[in-house]
Amino acid sequence: MTDKSILLEINEQNTVDNIIYFIRNYILGLKKEGAVVGLSGGIDSCVTLKLCTEAVGKNNVTAVILPEKDSEFENIKDAVNFAKLLEVRIIYKKITLILWLLRVYDLYPFSFFFKRSIQKKFVIRERNKISKRINKDIFIANLEGGNDKSLNKGIAYYRIKHRIRSSILFYYSDLYNYLFVGTVNKTERLTGFFVKYGDSIADIMPLNSLYKTQVVSLARFLNIGEKIINKPPSPDLIPGIDDEDIIGLPYGKLDLILFGIEHNYTDSDIKKISSASVKQIKDVKKMIEKSEYLRTWPIGL
Amino acid sequence: MTDKSILLEINEQNTVDNIIYFIRNYILGLKKEGAVVGLSGGIDSCVTLKLCTEAVGKNNVTAVILPEKDSEFENIKDAVNFAKLLEVRIIYKKITLILWLLRVYDLYPFSFFFKRSIQKKFVIRERNKISKRINKDIFIANLEGGNDKSLNKGIAYYRIKHRIRSSILFYYSDLYNYLFVGTVNKTERLTGFFVKYGDSIADIMPLNSLYKTQVVSLARFLNIGEKIINKPPSPDLIPGIDDEDIIGLPYGKLDLILFGIEHNYTDSDIKKISSASVKQIKDVKKMIEKSEYLRTWPIGL
Repeated sequence: MTDKSILLEINEQNTVDNIIYFIRNYILGLKKEGAVVGLSGGIDSCVTLKLCTEAVGKNNVTAVILPEKDSEFENIKDAVNFAKLLEVRIIYKKITLILWLLRVYDLYPFSFFFKRSIQKKFVIRERNKISKRINKDIFIANLEGGNDKSLNKGIAYYRIKHRIRSSILFYYSDLYNYLFVGTVNKTERLTGFFVKYGDSIADIMPLNSLYKTQVVSLARFLNIGEKIINKPPSPDLIPGIDDEDIIGLPYGKLDLILFGIEHNYTDSDIKKISSASVKQIKDVKKMIEKSEYLRTWPIGL
Repeated sequence: MTDKSILLEINEQNTVDNIIYFIRNYILGLKKEGAVVGLSGGIDSCVTLKLCTEAVGKNNVTAVILPEKDSEFENIKDAVNFAKLLEVRIIYKKITLILWLLRVYDLYPFSFFFKRSIQKKFVIRERNKISKRINKDIFIANLEGGNDKSLNKGIAYYRIKHRIRSSILFYYSDLYNYLFVGTVNKTERLTGFFVKYGDSIADIMPLNSLYKTQVVSLARFLNIGEKIINKPPSPDLIPGIDDEDIIGLPYGKLDLILFGIEHNYTDSDIKKISSASVKQIKDVKKMIEKSEYLRTWPIGL
């Protein structure tokens, strides 16, 4: 895309060494006996799992796979296969029934009856309709909140999934006295592309200082496997919606914009390194600003 | 207990006014349309609910009551009656089945068959056994963690309940575009007497700057009702365990110790205002120190 992606290059070996040291130290420091990772089959959780096994050995790592009705079958398969490959203990639990008990699926009552491809079309159409009605990019609208009923329904529908997952991950970490190792990366953290108190909670977050594109190069270095590396990244919460659909930018470009902002580049310099448009740079700045609230603790009086 | 409790006196009217202003401001600022409160029937959640109705009116407040197998019947009744009295919308959902699906109750498989009074005796005996075995106060041990299997089982058993509850509370707050108003008070926050990412998460935490005894005086001022005010405070997560059982100190004394520490009193001055023993003061300092970790975000590399 641009030869300026050299700005995001990392020394993979050093990075791996540092993260391993970091994970090991927290496990020892907090007197834990291993690590728990929630595995979605995506690149971030696979890299995190692999790093945990390198840090404390496969016998002290548990992969928890928590799919539900909307999870892509390919992702579940990738998760299971990857955990098997690493020979870690696997806990596999479908959370569909829990979400059903909470009447989450009732928000879109007919989705059970339609093929996935039709569900995807419905979701995209719904998203565009909302975006047009409130005259706003859907991701920014989702960060800002507001009183659009359909938007709030969609938000409620996807966020609870990650929150239930985190509750369960903490449960196993408490039960086994394991460290709960989270998977949010720096790109997600800065743009607000996470669920507050959902995937954003854990004991430690080892990918926290790596942009998404850096996680990808780490994944190559760690031989995570091309299938997992090459599929389009997706939160896998709503059928048919992948990361780029939501953020509206490819990660290569997004990370360079974030890098420029982080290093106090002028807009014109950011444009140069990322080939992004003025609107795209403005959008990313808005994401950072509007997601600030997601990075704060509950506000006390 | 001591006439030094005057140190903890507050101006109730001012406090109420400030909190109402605070809640209202956050609802407006975040473009929310009301408030959601998780109601346990305890004093903190009842005070919080009442303050929300004063802030935005009963028609814009929803009380969510989420009991499970171990919840005291009296507390459920108090919660329902109080919500009815305030004429707010009530969402009542038993979470027993969810916890059962997650096999949480399997940790103590026979508890279903025993009367509550017997369960209570079992819990107290179990707690004393663990405490003796690891030669540590159970609450400090719970904050520190460690590799005692029975301790970790107990921890896993109670913490998931609050975490599932918070997930559900966020769900309704997302769905209705309501502010999720939490109930943790200052005494709980400082001593670590909360579940990290359980009851400690919410959008705002209006009791955050009030000691428990101050919440009690606010409850009297707000006419919460003597039944709710006078029952022994309890997290209502494990049968037979109330707050004082866990912390090992009555709130009157605990709050004065915390007040002394907050104002940099010497140990001998803290002793004077609280009539606490040297060991009690040391224990409270340990609670503050050991719970520091619970007040941090996931730690990134």
